[in-house]
Amino acid sequence: MRILGIDPGSRATGWGLIEKQGNRLLHIDNGVITTRASEPLGDRLGTIYQHLSKVITGYAPTAVAVEEIFMAKNARSALKLGHARGVALLAGFNHDLPIAEYSALQVKSAVVGYGRADKKQIQEMVRILLKLPEIAQEDASDALAVAICHAHSAGINQRIAGSGGPNSR
Amino acid sequence: MRILGIDPGSRATGWGLIEKQGNRLLHIDNGVITTRASEPLGDRLGTIYQHLSKVITGYAPTAVAVEEIFMAKNARSALKLGHARGVALLAGFNHDLPIAEYSALQVKSAVVGYGRADKKQIQEMVRILLKLPEIAQEDASDALAVAICHAHSAGINQRIAGSGGPNSR
Repeated sequence: MRILGIDPGSRATGWGLIEKQGNRLLHIDNGVITTRASEPLGDRLGTIYQHLSKVITGYAPTAVAVEEIFMAKNARSALKLGHARGVALLAGFNHDLPIAEYSALQVKSAVVGYGRADKKQIQEMVRILLKLPEIAQEDASDALAVAICHAHSAGINQRIAGSGGPNSR
Repeated sequence: MRILGIDPGSRATGWGLIEKQGNRLLHIDNGVITTRASEPLGDRLGTIYQHLSKVITGYAPTAVAVEEIFMAKNARSALKLGHARGVALLAGFNHDLPIAEYSALQVKSAVVGYGRADKKQIQEMVRILLKLPEIAQEDASDALAVAICHAHSAGINQRIAGSGGPNSR
C-alpha cells in the first residue's frame, strides 16, 4: 500500500509518499508546494491542485491521508487553510482515492507513541522511521507523519479484519 | 458577457448565471447544490466541484464572481466554508475563467444601491432586476446578486477604459 500524506496550507502545502511493505515503511518522495500571497487566489489553488494531481499521477498512491483540523488561530486563517485543504482533498477524490483523516493526537501517538510530543520530536522520529538522511522540510515532514499514521492504522485494521475481530474464533 | 455567480457553502452552494447585453441583464439559470453532512468530506467537495464544472461546461460563462469573505462565525465554520469556497474557485480556474471577488458591501451597493440593505431587500431586487417570476432560493439569489455586482463593475470598468480614464477627453 502506497500512502500520500498531505499537510495543506495556503502558502506551503507539504506532501509525503511512503510505501508499506509488510511491517516496513519505505520513503518514496516528499516535497513542498509553495505559492505567493501576491498571486490571485484562484491561481494559488490551481497550483496546489495541479501539483498534487501530478504527484498522484506520477506515483500512483492507493490512499490519501490528511490531518483533521479542529482549531485555527482565527476565522480568517481558518478560511485560507480551508481553501487549500479543500482542493487537496478534491485532488484525492478526483483520482478515486480513499481519503483518511486523523487528529493531531492520533498522528503524534502513531509516530512518537506519545500524544504530547513536540514538533521537533516528531520530525526526528519521521526521519528515523523512514531512514531519511536528514529531517525533511517542516511541511513535508508533517505530511510524512500523517502518512505513517495511516500506515499504522491500516495495519491495525488489517490485523483486526484478519483475525475476524477480537471476539472471533 | 456571461457571468457565473457562486455563493459557496459546505451544505448548500448557490449558483446563478446571467448575461449582460449592453445595459440589459438577462437571467439564464440558477440552482443550489446541496450535500449531506453524513457524506465523507471528499465526496461532498467532489459533488460541488463536479456540479459547478457541469454548469460551466454547459453554459460557457466568461467570468466567475464570488463574494469575498472576511468574517465567519468561528474558526470551525470558516474552515468548512473555506473547503467549499476553495473547490468553487478551482472549478473556475480549471476552466480558464477569470475570477472576481467582491465584498458584501459592494454586492449590496450594486444590487440595492445601499450598502446596509437587508437580505430580503436584496432578494427582492435580484428578482426585479432579472425579471424572475418569484424570489430564487436563498443561496441561488445570493449567487445571482454577486453576478449582478460583477456585471455593474465590468460596465463601469469598460466605460472608464473606453473614455480613456477620468482625466481623458
